[in-house]
Amino acid sequence: MEDQNPIKEVRLTPIRNGTVIDHIACGQALNVVKILGINENNIYSSISIGVHVSSKALGWKDIIKIEDVEIDQKKSEQIALVAPDATISIVRDFYVAEKYKVVLGDHVTGLARCTNPNCITNKGEPILPEFEVTSKYPVQLKCCYCEKVVNHIYDNLL
Amino acid sequence: MEDQNPIKEVRLTPIRNGTVIDHIACGQALNVVKILGINENNIYSSISIGVHVSSKALGWKDIIKIEDVEIDQKKSEQIALVAPDATISIVRDFYVAEKYKVVLGDHVTGLARCTNPNCITNKGEPILPEFEVTSKYPVQLKCCYCEKVVNHIYDNLL
Repeated sequence: MEDQNPIKEVRLTPIRNGTVIDHIACGQALNVVKILGINENNIYSSISIGVHVSSKALGWKDIIKIEDVEIDQKKSEQIALVAPDATISIVRDFYVAEKYKVVLGDHVTGLARCTNPNCITNKGEPILPEFEVTSKYPVQLKCCYCEKVVNHIYDNLL
Repeated sequence: MEDQNPIKEVRLTPIRNGTVIDHIACGQALNVVKILGINENNIYSSISIGVHVSSKALGWKDIIKIEDVEIDQKKSEQIALVAPDATISIVRDFYVAEKYKVVLGDHVTGLARCTNPNCITNKGEPILPEFEVTSKYPVQLKCCYCEKVVNHIYDNLL
C-alpha cells in the first residue's frame, strides 16, 4: 500500500457551476490565484486548490476549482503565461459546457506590462506591450521594444 | 436541495501525515500560506486549500491540509495573527496526534517586524519587536515602542 501512495492524491469534490483549471504546472496554483485577482477582499464563492497533486500526464500538477465564476479569454491567456499546459473547463449544472487548453503562442500582446520603467510601452504612448516567448518551461518573455527579459510576469499583468 | 446548498462545501480528503489548519477566518487561507512560507520554489508535498467553505461555527471558513509537514509553535502563533480562531491538528498515520487552538494574546513578541523603519526595533538594537493586540476581528496591532499601527502583519513576519 505504501508504494501505491494512495492518499497523496488530493481529490476535490465536483462543482455545480464554475471553472476548473487543471494541469497547472506544479507549484503555479498560487500564481494562477494571483492572476485571477483572488485575495482576502473579494472572495464570494468557494474555491478549492490542490497543490502538488499526482498526475499521469505531468507527474505532479496543481488544480483549482472556483464555484460560480466563469473565467474569460483574457484570463485564460494570462494563465498560459504561468501554466502553458493548463486546461480550462467551464462547468454548468455539473456538466462540462466548454473545455479547452490554454494557448501560449510565440508572441503575447496586451497581457502584461514590461518591467523596464523606461520602456516605450510604459511612457503613456498608445502602444500595447508585446513580448516574444523565449522559453515555455519555465515561461520567459522578452519585450519586443526594449528587449527586457521578464521571468515573473504574474506581478505585472494588465 | 437548492436551499441546502449541498455542493458548495469543499470536502478535502483525509491526510495520512501532516497538519490540518481548520477554522481559518474566511479569505485568510492565502495569507496563512504566506505565513507557512509556501511558494512555487519549495513545494515538496501535497497541499489542499479550501476557501469560503461552509462552517457551522463561523458561517464561512477556510481550511488547509498539508501532507508530511508538522508546523511548529512559532508558526501557529503567527497564524493566530491572521486567523485567531484557527485550530491546528497534527495528523500521524491518519490519526489526530495533537489538536489545539491557536492563541492570540494581548501582546505578541518576536513574531513580526514593526513597519516603521525608524522604530527602535528596526535599528539593530537587541530588542524584540513587541505589539499590543488592539483588535482581533480583524487583527490590528500597535507597536509597543513607536505606537505604529499595523494591519497587514503577514508581510512582516520574523
